[in-house]
Amino acid sequence: MVGVDVTKTVQPIPDFDTLNVPASQLSDDLRAALVAILGERYVQTDDMTRVVHAFGKGVRDLMRVRRGDLGRVPDVVLYPADQAQVEALVDAVVAADGVLIPFGGGSNIVAALEAEPGETRQVVSVNLGRLNKVLEIDEVSGLAHIQAGVFGPDMEDQLKARGWTMGHHPDSFVWSTLGGWIATRSSGMQSDKYGDIADICRGLTMVMPGQVLELRPLPSSSSGPSVREMVLGSEGRLGVITSAWVNVHRIPEVRELQAYFFPTYEAGLKACEAIVSSDAAVMMARVSDAVETRYIMANGKKSGKVSSYVNKAIQKLMVQKGWDLEQIAMSFVGFEGSTSHVRYERGLVGRIVKEHGGMGVGKGPGTLYDQKKYDTPYLRDFMLDRGLVCDVSETTTPWAYAAEIHTKTVAAFHAKMDELGVQGVLFCHLSHSYHSGACQYFTFAINDSSENAERTYDEAKRVVQQSFMDFHGTVSHHHGVGEEHSPWMEQDISPAGVFIQRKLFEGVDPGNNLNPGKIVHDGRPGISSNSPDA
Amino acid sequence: MVGVDVTKTVQPIPDFDTLNVPASQLSDDLRAALVAILGERYVQTDDMTRVVHAFGKGVRDLMRVRRGDLGRVPDVVLYPADQAQVEALVDAVVAADGVLIPFGGGSNIVAALEAEPGETRQVVSVNLGRLNKVLEIDEVSGLAHIQAGVFGPDMEDQLKARGWTMGHHPDSFVWSTLGGWIATRSSGMQSDKYGDIADICRGLTMVMPGQVLELRPLPSSSSGPSVREMVLGSEGRLGVITSAWVNVHRIPEVRELQAYFFPTYEAGLKACEAIVSSDAAVMMARVSDAVETRYIMANGKKSGKVSSYVNKAIQKLMVQKGWDLEQIAMSFVGFEGSTSHVRYERGLVGRIVKEHGGMGVGKGPGTLYDQKKYDTPYLRDFMLDRGLVCDVSETTTPWAYAAEIHTKTVAAFHAKMDELGVQGVLFCHLSHSYHSGACQYFTFAINDSSENAERTYDEAKRVVQQSFMDFHGTVSHHHGVGEEHSPWMEQDISPAGVFIQRKLFEGVDPGNNLNPGKIVHDGRPGISSNSPDA
Repeated sequence: MVGVDVTKTVQPIPDFDTLNVPASQLSDDLRAALVAILGERYVQTDDMTRVVHAFGKGVRDLMRVRRGDLGRVPDVVLYPADQAQVEALVDAVVAADGVLIPFGGGSNIVAALEAEPGETRQVVSVNLGRLNKVLEIDEVSGLAHIQAGVFGPDMEDQLKARGWTMGHHPDSFVWSTLGGWIATRSSGMQSDKYGDIADICRGLTMVMPGQVLELRPLPSSSSGPSVREMVLGSEGRLGVITSAWVNVHRIPEVRELQAYFFPTYEAGLKACEAIVSSDAAVMMARVSDAVETRYIMANGKKSGKVSSYVNKAIQKLMVQKGWDLEQIAMSFVGFEGSTSHVRYERGLVGRIVKEHGGMGVGKGPGTLYDQKKYDTPYLRDFMLDRGLVCDVSETTTPWAYAAEIHTKTVAAFHAKMDELGVQGVLFCHLSHSYHSGACQYFTFAINDSSENAERTYDEAKRVVQQSFMDFHGTVSHHHGVGEEHSPWMEQDISPAGVFIQRKLFEGVDPGNNLNPGKIVHDGRPGISSNSPDA
Repeated sequence: MVGVDVTKTVQPIPDFDTLNVPASQLSDDLRAALVAILGERYVQTDDMTRVVHAFGKGVRDLMRVRRGDLGRVPDVVLYPADQAQVEALVDAVVAADGVLIPFGGGSNIVAALEAEPGETRQVVSVNLGRLNKVLEIDEVSGLAHIQAGVFGPDMEDQLKARGWTMGHHPDSFVWSTLGGWIATRSSGMQSDKYGDIADICRGLTMVMPGQVLELRPLPSSSSGPSVREMVLGSEGRLGVITSAWVNVHRIPEVRELQAYFFPTYEAGLKACEAIVSSDAAVMMARVSDAVETRYIMANGKKSGKVSSYVNKAIQKLMVQKGWDLEQIAMSFVGFEGSTSHVRYERGLVGRIVKEHGGMGVGKGPGTLYDQKKYDTPYLRDFMLDRGLVCDVSETTTPWAYAAEIHTKTVAAFHAKMDELGVQGVLFCHLSHSYHSGACQYFTFAINDSSENAERTYDEAKRVVQQSFMDFHGTVSHHHGVGEEHSPWMEQDISPAGVFIQRKLFEGVDPGNNLNPGKIVHDGRPGISSNSPDA
């Protein structure tokens, strides 16, 4: 679709040894203080460790590291073992007027993990990976107290061993952490049932300079403006999250993904809206647009053959119904609960699907989806080798604008591609539903292996984000703001909203030591050249 | 139960004319500026208007006004007609270094509507009552744009005329407003289905000095720390809320309240917990403790006769089951949806009730409950006439502590009553459920018509609030903080949490013009003498 020959590598990854890694600027005094707190082994200044912690995993990050632009590499990476060490190191770094950047799994894609390019102070990356234990499960309340640095699979293994699940499965699940999910207001694939991390996280501990925020687990509270919600999405600007109390659930008796097809994406959107406002309470309702449906089909087990998702008989039936096979939209709906409850809800959903002209094709495709659900992001490296720049952007809108923002974003992207004279593709699925609207998740790929590739990417990203703003969307549903999205914040939450966030950050962190420049710009030159005015 | 003869009035309400109302301190300059904005008619300085806006409706407020303590009566009450007028008046008042206190329905019970006693600046109460329109309904998304000053019944009438409901029904519904619900993080009786106001409110407009915060309606977002959630519960400290976008729902085909009885409150709590974690998604699950159950029975239609709630045959059945009629706990569970869905969920709940030793008694009691659900608060005036001081306090805890906080709070209250040598009663119901816990709503009454009554009340309130803190509760589930609860905030959200709130307020309102002293104390003498250290 974009003219790429996947059998040919055009951009090999450079050797690490060829990179020009800036020397660590860590002072002897600060090093001594940190070694006294953490021990020699957990104060790392070698080049590889520092480069690994210099970025997130945005496609811009991948492109930059490939061409040897390492940005403002941290001067030291710390690996605290417990909260007491985090408290001591935060105080030591702030006393030395250093910059603190918490690091979870490093999967951030909005430039939230990187110091500002012009940062002259010492930059300290704090890797929370040793804080990786489920500390306690309150089996009566369905709450677990978990350290912030635990990775998704490790956490779920610890919970499952006692019969529990948190039910939070973002695409990044394998390489992201609880603390990272909280710091970015993450959302998982099963959020329709389990909620976004903002719902799941009921209490937390955050280390701040000279003090520790302790929010006990509470189902709900009216204790003034929610401090819990100020920490959610704070991306390190208020402190270092060390643990959290989260909702956990008993592993359900039945978990079932049913696949459905609709003649068009618009029909699928309408069906999802109807499912969400019905008496059914599904775990997931997802539908892909026509282009993404073709992409999924092409990634079936028997590569290129539709048959691994839909057999010939069903295709024939679609044609008989008058469907255009180029326009069909694939949908997955997830059910959980007792056997009889899943049967009941499947019945409710089946009727809605039928009313919207859709058809069910059973559980087979859902099994494939489950096997591959975390894989897509990792294709980006393979694609970059072949000159294809791939990225994702997601937004939410009220239902009234769901179809419009899709068609307008597709049109804006292709107009930009035409203008630039490059081939590109953009597709989308509805991923998370709410009473009043839904998240749509766009993936785009641009065939540009020239030296202009980053500029081309910037322009594509910019038209997508601006389209979100122009058609009633938000800057991000769950990737967060970082530096990448901060230029759109005044359009998203109004200048007064940015003023409020700025006053919060300035008040809590007057020395600008806590991951400065993220969410709310500090006026210094940024990492990306992106801006609505560019 | 508390030795009060309800046929005898011991404390008549004083005549308004006998009150000593402090003169308005409104300057000629500010008056002229306000009249230019609003017109003469909507700038009121007469004594009655100012006294009506001097308080909320806490029992402390009722007691104080009865003995002629009017506190720091506002100097002027404004009635803006639209947002432009609110913008102009906010700027005029802040330019004159006045104090701005937004006023919705005046039903606040935590001293959030009153100026600090020592306030020397001009105090301006802003009554939002003229901003009372449902502006727009987005029928596709299930969202309504509504002005902040509308009262509950008026708002629901406007919505119902087009087939919609917001489903938010706090006890104060009749005399409270949308803006007030948002400013206090309110919750309604049907929150299990419709959510707390924090869930319902998807966007809002708030006038701040020199700027307007505009948060467009979004189902969810990860735009950094949630500014929407900072406004929720801000009690006027960040600005004046003028309108909001809220979730609205189609009026369900069936709405049904089923009544159940359990042998004890503990059994009822366990049943509610099981209902919430089951496959059923009920609109309401409520259970009263033994004392409250007796109170409800005594308030049946045929006063004093149990028979309006439970007939003789059912009582006989309870006795046959070995139940102690003094310990029985009454429960209401609400169902909404299609006829078949309500039947399905009723079946799920019925099985859980049976497993917990409960029994259903049908829809009759629910009809009575519906008729009387907003009435209880108004008994306080009748009771005060008779020397009985009644108040309410609510909290949430994780399920693990639900039974304990109940028994410990009952014990702490009665120990205090014994110590003071007065008669009192305290009862409770579970009112709002969440995955990990629930809100319990305590009502207490103290027979004290002496001049010590306010001190007795303070001591009772103090032991109840402190018990919440001691047994894993929050300071308030939905009444908010105001000044009344602010002394417990450091225990609730930790000193660092109060630090964060304080920095937010100081940053946004450096002149301390926006309802100062609420939520976070400013160190000046307060309205109540309450404090954990008192």
